[in-house]
Amino acid sequence: MPSDHAPAVVAALAGLGGQRVWSLMVSLFGDMAQGQGDAIDGPVLSQIMAALDVRPEANRVALHRLRNDGWLQSVKAGRISQHSLTPMGRRESAAASPRIYAPPPDLDEPWQLALCETGGAETEATMRAAGFIPVMPRGFAGPRGVRPPEGCACLPGTEAPDWLRRAAEPSALEDDYTALLEALQKLEAALPPNAALSALDVAVLRCLIVHNWRRLVLKHPAAPGGLIRPDWSGYRCHLLVDALLARYPRPTLAEVAAASAAG
Amino acid sequence: MPSDHAPAVVAALAGLGGQRVWSLMVSLFGDMAQGQGDAIDGPVLSQIMAALDVRPEANRVALHRLRNDGWLQSVKAGRISQHSLTPMGRRESAAASPRIYAPPPDLDEPWQLALCETGGAETEATMRAAGFIPVMPRGFAGPRGVRPPEGCACLPGTEAPDWLRRAAEPSALEDDYTALLEALQKLEAALPPNAALSALDVAVLRCLIVHNWRRLVLKHPAAPGGLIRPDWSGYRCHLLVDALLARYPRPTLAEVAAASAAG
Repeated sequence: MPSDHAPAVVAALAGLGGQRVWSLMVSLFGDMAQGQGDAIDGPVLSQIMAALDVRPEANRVALHRLRNDGWLQSVKAGRISQHSLTPMGRRESAAASPRIYAPPPDLDEPWQLALCETGGAETEATMRAAGFIPVMPRGFAGPRGVRPPEGCACLPGTEAPDWLRRAAEPSALEDDYTALLEALQKLEAALPPNAALSALDVAVLRCLIVHNWRRLVLKHPAAPGGLIRPDWSGYRCHLLVDALLARYPRPTLAEVAAASAAG
Repeated sequence: MPSDHAPAVVAALAGLGGQRVWSLMVSLFGDMAQGQGDAIDGPVLSQIMAALDVRPEANRVALHRLRNDGWLQSVKAGRISQHSLTPMGRRESAAASPRIYAPPPDLDEPWQLALCETGGAETEATMRAAGFIPVMPRGFAGPRGVRPPEGCACLPGTEAPDWLRRAAEPSALEDDYTALLEALQKLEAALPPNAALSALDVAVLRCLIVHNWRRLVLKHPAAPGGLIRPDWSGYRCHLLVDALLARYPRPTLAEVAAASAAG
């Protein structure tokens, strides 16, 4: 059973919205049970979801949906259901993980500017697919090593002024990143040391952090480090997410199950 | 008196237009009499202008205008008028000369791209004044050493694709440069060796070359060499102008006067 700390954690991050139950469950399995053969027992899952403020009915609906979508599978072991990612669910989780769990970027990472002869949606799509993000009309930034599409002019990036760094930021997510940063800062200030939390608490805490982080970070391409503004809220979220996930390492499923049974 | 070759020279370049007499005279004095104390005797000037197909009446009107404008001054020496640049005319000629007589650019000259936060006419004016030419929306090219205005991002130029080089060319002068190139090529093919021309012929020839070249080259800023397309008509004109002026070096005023008296 979750300790008394769990409600505070949930409260700190619950105000951010986007907590659709099936999506929370995707975050949970991605963080806790991405390994081949990993499964979460029904009662443990129920306790985690309850700690996440999810009612049992909503929990059942989400499980049903994710099974229908081919993301989760459930097998009976005696009187207990064991839930796990399908091969597809595992593949998709694995594809997103490098971005979600990436260490914060090196702000000295070399970048380059690729100039295109023409602008428009088609050019932008081509450039995005090649790993470049638009920062100027017909100008796209990418990491130094990446080869841009044929016909581009390619200039090595230098120390960039603030306005150019801002141009590389996903402006549509600015408010969301600011809100997440505030929530994470509140969370960090309120959280007890790791030893004071049960494995179940940590699973809940990590699920909420990963979930709220991936909702934003997967919506935009990563800017090359050399173009990132040190006080951009998205970068500061990244630093905090990285620090918090390191401070509260992933417990094993056995530890979570034991903590759950102890309740 | 000019030799038989002069009419061919005049014909080759006369079709280009822009042969206003006072402007031709500015070119002539700039090329032949820019030095302190340099003066062209009235009869010599008349012969040169006649060789340039200018009627005596038009010659007098142009002289009158340039004196009124403070560009030329005339003094009587016995029965002969001596015409020379005023200090102002000499200053203006000297200011334009570096560009007119510049050797062709080194196509390996390093360049840089300066990116501006905002676009518009004001930005463009500021950037042009700083020695940069627009090649992209909010993107300006300049020689590597030049410091751009505050707030610009500055990237070292690299091997540029054709479309970017074209963007640095003065497209409004494309037809004029093409016409000048054809005229210069015709001229080069038709011209006799220097030894076959009188000093007066050479003065006429140089005046026509300098005049038609400066009419175009002074209308646009020089692009950094590293951005110049080797087959751009403006660059090929520059090569030919440079070669022709070297092949037919400037005669002294005394040589021109002697050739004129010999007629």
